[in-house]
Amino acid sequence: MGESVERGAYYVQSLERGLAVVRAFSADTPALTLTDVAKATGLTRAAARRFLLTLVDLGYVRTDGKLFSLTARVLELGYAFLSSMSLPEIAQPHLERLSGEVGESTSASVLDGADVVYVARFAVSRIMAVSITVGTRFPAYATSMGHVLLAGLSAGELERYLGSVRLEPLTSHTITSVERLRDELDGVRAQGWALVDQELEEGLRSVAAPVRDRSGRVVAAVNVSTHASRTTVDRMREETVPRLLATCAAIEQDLAADPRPRV
Amino acid sequence: MGESVERGAYYVQSLERGLAVVRAFSADTPALTLTDVAKATGLTRAAARRFLLTLVDLGYVRTDGKLFSLTARVLELGYAFLSSMSLPEIAQPHLERLSGEVGESTSASVLDGADVVYVARFAVSRIMAVSITVGTRFPAYATSMGHVLLAGLSAGELERYLGSVRLEPLTSHTITSVERLRDELDGVRAQGWALVDQELEEGLRSVAAPVRDRSGRVVAAVNVSTHASRTTVDRMREETVPRLLATCAAIEQDLAADPRPRV
Repeated sequence: MGESVERGAYYVQSLERGLAVVRAFSADTPALTLTDVAKATGLTRAAARRFLLTLVDLGYVRTDGKLFSLTARVLELGYAFLSSMSLPEIAQPHLERLSGEVGESTSASVLDGADVVYVARFAVSRIMAVSITVGTRFPAYATSMGHVLLAGLSAGELERYLGSVRLEPLTSHTITSVERLRDELDGVRAQGWALVDQELEEGLRSVAAPVRDRSGRVVAAVNVSTHASRTTVDRMREETVPRLLATCAAIEQDLAADPRPRV
Repeated sequence: MGESVERGAYYVQSLERGLAVVRAFSADTPALTLTDVAKATGLTRAAARRFLLTLVDLGYVRTDGKLFSLTARVLELGYAFLSSMSLPEIAQPHLERLSGEVGESTSASVLDGADVVYVARFAVSRIMAVSITVGTRFPAYATSMGHVLLAGLSAGELERYLGSVRLEPLTSHTITSVERLRDELDGVRAQGWALVDQELEEGLRSVAAPVRDRSGRVVAAVNVSTHASRTTVDRMREETVPRLLATCAAIEQDLAADPRPRV
């Protein structure tokens, strides 16, 4: 609950706690008791009950008296963000076309803190693709889109990231040294795209390239992901990367033509 | 801000107000000043400032000092719900297959209060489809999925809905009388699917059918939507409906085989 962080006098702790209650629900824990929520959030049972019942009144949570679960209404909170972004809407037909060309799933993501967050996706695989949706997060250091987005940071931003990140070995291929990651990002910046081979998950291979705004700032990344058994690294480099780069250029062109202020 | 509603002693008004600040942002208003947020939420400027700065601290809002906007982090709130639902994941490949068969966009939705909320979608059209994503809401009375979901309510639930709904004429075709809507829903219940012809938007025609859980309760609706100029009502009835019903049956079969507790 962030007890160790110094907060300003303005800080509304009840809002932090209420949002922590929403986040206590997940794919593994879709239905929780009062005790579960207290445990997951560090709140007392009395406090957890106040927040849960408030969320029930507001229509974000439903209960049978014992178990609590989220309702579809919580989507409206994320929807406010998605609908305010032009990128997902602009990228979607391009992702679909790219996916048709290469026969693999395609995605677009943005950087949020130390994570990539998916904002658009076109899935073709039924096997590996199922658990990724808009809103899915992965640590940037272990993904091709993350490498592209990190390589697009300013020197100061990148140093702050490298100074605070914990590089956990997610597979035997994950880059776990800050120096190796810095070298990798230098390479990505120079070549204009990133390839990640089973650094996030065994068997998962992907290539990503940046999408830039009119000022040249990297605002998003697009990737093509595949199972390692379906293609070689060389084939991804020779066949997939040129199509990926063409897709990013087309998205940039549409973005530049869009009158809305944000991506 | 719900001043007129009686709230229990447990009620955490700060949580309600903080969530109202998140909802103040939208596609039309992605970047707001402090004054804009105060106006949209009915809060004082001082209160709006406290909530905005708290949301900035929590990473849900960013600011340049003057304008505030949501970050990708708000997606994690809706994501907790989506990832806890098996339906979107189970429905997606079926929507994709149906879309390939009929050459039109397909969607799945659930009922949330008086609205249908999209939880999965496969879009083929670039023209009418762009503004609909997961999380989009439409009034149930004007949509084919809404008719299917309303027809699946218990008699008591339906009467509560009909007793409180305001039937606004969204087009010249919208059903605006409770008696006509009740008759329409009786027909939908009897025939097992719904057709809505330009009741939500001129030119938009769609058919929907229910997805039931093992107990026979309607838990979701699936639709095929098209532009009125691309097909006739008769063709939708003869060609689209049989494929739609087969898709719903296949989704029901997969749902019944899924070990997870919720849809």
